[in-house]
Amino acid sequence: MEPQVRLRQIIFFFLLVLTVLEHSSSARILSISKPDRHDIAASARWLVSQNSWGVLSTLSIEHEGAPFGNVVSYSDGLPEKGNGIPYFYLTILDPTTRNALKDSRASFAISESPIGTCKRDPMDPTCSKLTLTGKLLQVDEGSKEEEVAKEALFTKHPEMMDWPKEHDFRFFKLEIINIFLINWYGGAKSITVDEYLRYKAIKVASSFL
Amino acid sequence: MEPQVRLRQIIFFFLLVLTVLEHSSSARILSISKPDRHDIAASARWLVSQNSWGVLSTLSIEHEGAPFGNVVSYSDGLPEKGNGIPYFYLTILDPTTRNALKDSRASFAISESPIGTCKRDPMDPTCSKLTLTGKLLQVDEGSKEEEVAKEALFTKHPEMMDWPKEHDFRFFKLEIINIFLINWYGGAKSITVDEYLRYKAIKVASSFL
Repeated sequence: MEPQVRLRQIIFFFLLVLTVLEHSSSARILSISKPDRHDIAASARWLVSQNSWGVLSTLSIEHEGAPFGNVVSYSDGLPEKGNGIPYFYLTILDPTTRNALKDSRASFAISESPIGTCKRDPMDPTCSKLTLTGKLLQVDEGSKEEEVAKEALFTKHPEMMDWPKEHDFRFFKLEIINIFLINWYGGAKSITVDEYLRYKAIKVASSFL
Repeated sequence: MEPQVRLRQIIFFFLLVLTVLEHSSSARILSISKPDRHDIAASARWLVSQNSWGVLSTLSIEHEGAPFGNVVSYSDGLPEKGNGIPYFYLTILDPTTRNALKDSRASFAISESPIGTCKRDPMDPTCSKLTLTGKLLQVDEGSKEEEVAKEALFTKHPEMMDWPKEHDFRFFKLEIINIFLINWYGGAKSITVDEYLRYKAIKVASSFL
């Protein structure tokens, strides 16, 4: 083989390895780039659709009403069909579930940081963050919405399908009352729940799964 | 130049690029590997020392006592000298700060996910998570502890030094009352605040900064 040809082959191979490594290093391939920061609804929906986990806070029964944040996985819907509502798959063994069944007041916080698009400190206002405040409600068993929640969660988090049945996992949703979004300097952005929910479906590439 | 030599140089160059890329893709170089899961105190302290952000939950004044989670940066101390206490640099413009000054009950939740060592879903019990519940208190101005908090935060988050002085940033700490740790199957692990705080200082390599 000609040395020049071999050289080209080696360069090609390394470029291939570089590409694979770059993509595997981020949690997912970002097919939807970060929206313009002036489009508040798009920014909020993008954060929700691109993330896969956050912190769900409820009022603690065990600790006399103290706020109890808990790391959980979630999903707002199937790729290309996200509805902006965070669905959860929670077991009654989890204090968060027991708290919510007693007092549904809750909030769900996510950061842009895990998406991999933040260039500065996670608390710098250019690194977006979102807190949805509302009610953590169990989705009615056997309802159409339970099917939506199940499909949303099991496609984004396929491991959930194997979680132990005897742990009494149930589908929950956050009924959103207030939206707190910071996606630039100047404090929290103004956005109503209606503006947020009516935002056109976010197209999340299948590579997201 | 000999083709063989040129070939070796190209291979060396690509390996160098690969190495740089691999290291830059993870948030930091992990010098302290994940502790044995049976060492509960080590696991909790490792999570706190290796992470740089989490969700701080307080009781919302605006939303009638609902739990309000907020993404924040934190630090528990200088490398090799972390004390396990999460310190925060919060402005009075932030609802979390105003909530805490009215009712100090709070919790702080972090995940192993951002560290990059989770092999499964962020909610799988093998992907550790920690919630510290307690009181979010302002560190006394001019005190020795304020110096500790300042050094801890400004070394781990150097950008904080440039945050606008007119925003009235103050140093806060979480006085821990309860520890909720999941680092394996079988539910939350039992660990007292004393066991957690007395754990020997975690040595975090300077590469962490």
